[in-house]
Amino acid sequence: MTTGYGLERDDYLKRLARIEGQVRGIAKMVEEDRYCIDVLTQIVSVTSALRSLGLGLVDQHIRTCVRAGFETDDELGDERITEATRSIERLLRA
Amino acid sequence: MTTGYGLERDDYLKRLARIEGQVRGIAKMVEEDRYCIDVLTQIVSVTSALRSLGLGLVDQHIRTCVRAGFETDDELGDERITEATRSIERLLRA
Amino acid sequence: MTTGYGLERDDYLKRLARIEGQVRGIAKMVEEDRYCIDVLTQIVSVTSALRSLGLGLVDQHIRTCVRAGFETDDELGDERITEATRSIERLLRA
Amino acid sequence: MTTGYGLERDDYLKRLARIEGQVRGIAKMVEEDRYCIDVLTQIVSVTSALRSLGLGLVDQHIRTCVRAGFETDDELGDERITEATRSIERLLRA
Repeated sequence: MTTGYGLERDDYLKRLARIEGQVRGIAKMVEEDRYCIDVLTQIVSVTSALRSLGLGLVDQHIRTCVRAGFETDDELGDERITEATRSIERLLRA
Repeated sequence: MTTGYGLERDDYLKRLARIEGQVRGIAKMVEEDRYCIDVLTQIVSVTSALRSLGLGLVDQHIRTCVRAGFETDDELGDERITEATRSIERLLRA
Repeated sequence: MTTGYGLERDDYLKRLARIEGQVRGIAKMVEEDRYCIDVLTQIVSVTSALRSLGLGLVDQHIRTCVRAGFETDDELGDERITEATRSIERLLRA
Repeated sequence: MTTGYGLERDDYLKRLARIEGQVRGIAKMVEEDRYCIDVLTQIVSVTSALRSLGLGLVDQHIRTCVRAGFETDDELGDERITEATRSIERLLRA
């Protein structure tokens, strides 16, 4: 099974480590009773980083898996587009 | 300084710990070359958990800080609503 | 019954008229078989205008109806915050 | 130039006509000073309809234009994916 993000795996892992650190930072802010709006600002920043990551995965899924699907057969290509669209919808409504 | 989430701090900390664990789980999936759509599904789940957390903070900010603001003076109440609206906008566009 | 947007009703009506015109413009683009990405750009622009409108209503609902609620009694104020939060959530997930 | 939505153009036009009617309905609600939360509910409904429309365009863009791009040459296929990703990002942040 191909994965779309193979070539940029290290980049993804770095971004995920940073996000994990940010989440820990938010917990620390809550422990210290920091002002709600400041906590919110950090939540927005992590949400934005996660959505960018998700968007990157969608992009590479199309570039790699959808394309490889069509090279195998039309049905597989179409199936993988349907998967992509459903994921985009869930990302929109998350 | 009041914080809106004071009474539910432990609940927030538990949710943040769970989110941190989920982010680590996503990194593990990437390390194991799991299928992009499955990674995406987890990203959507964390994003949704974070937005719910953010929404809870907005709700409690209005219930607590905005209200306390108006009890001090009109200007402070209005300022805190403006802060809330800006945060909601950033959450929408995150 | 107070409405939060009373004082800016004319502004809202102007913005809604503009949005209606934009939707008609999108239909015209579809009739003319314009490139999908260009149609999408217009859809994004209308969506953004509608969400800003929605956000303006939330802001004024808090400034006016929530506050008037608390001046009547605590329960009414709290109810109106709950309504606001639910609307913000629906706007986030729309 | 192919358009991805060609085969479903009538469906799109019907949905756009319905959206236009809904926007007019919201203007009527504002004129009648209807409760802000009820106006908001309608705005959420139109926003959701527009995002679904946008998502449909993205899906068909990939199914049709991206694929036709790759059948012409790799560079054109890649360019059209980049366009798609940028549109999805704008839709997410709209």
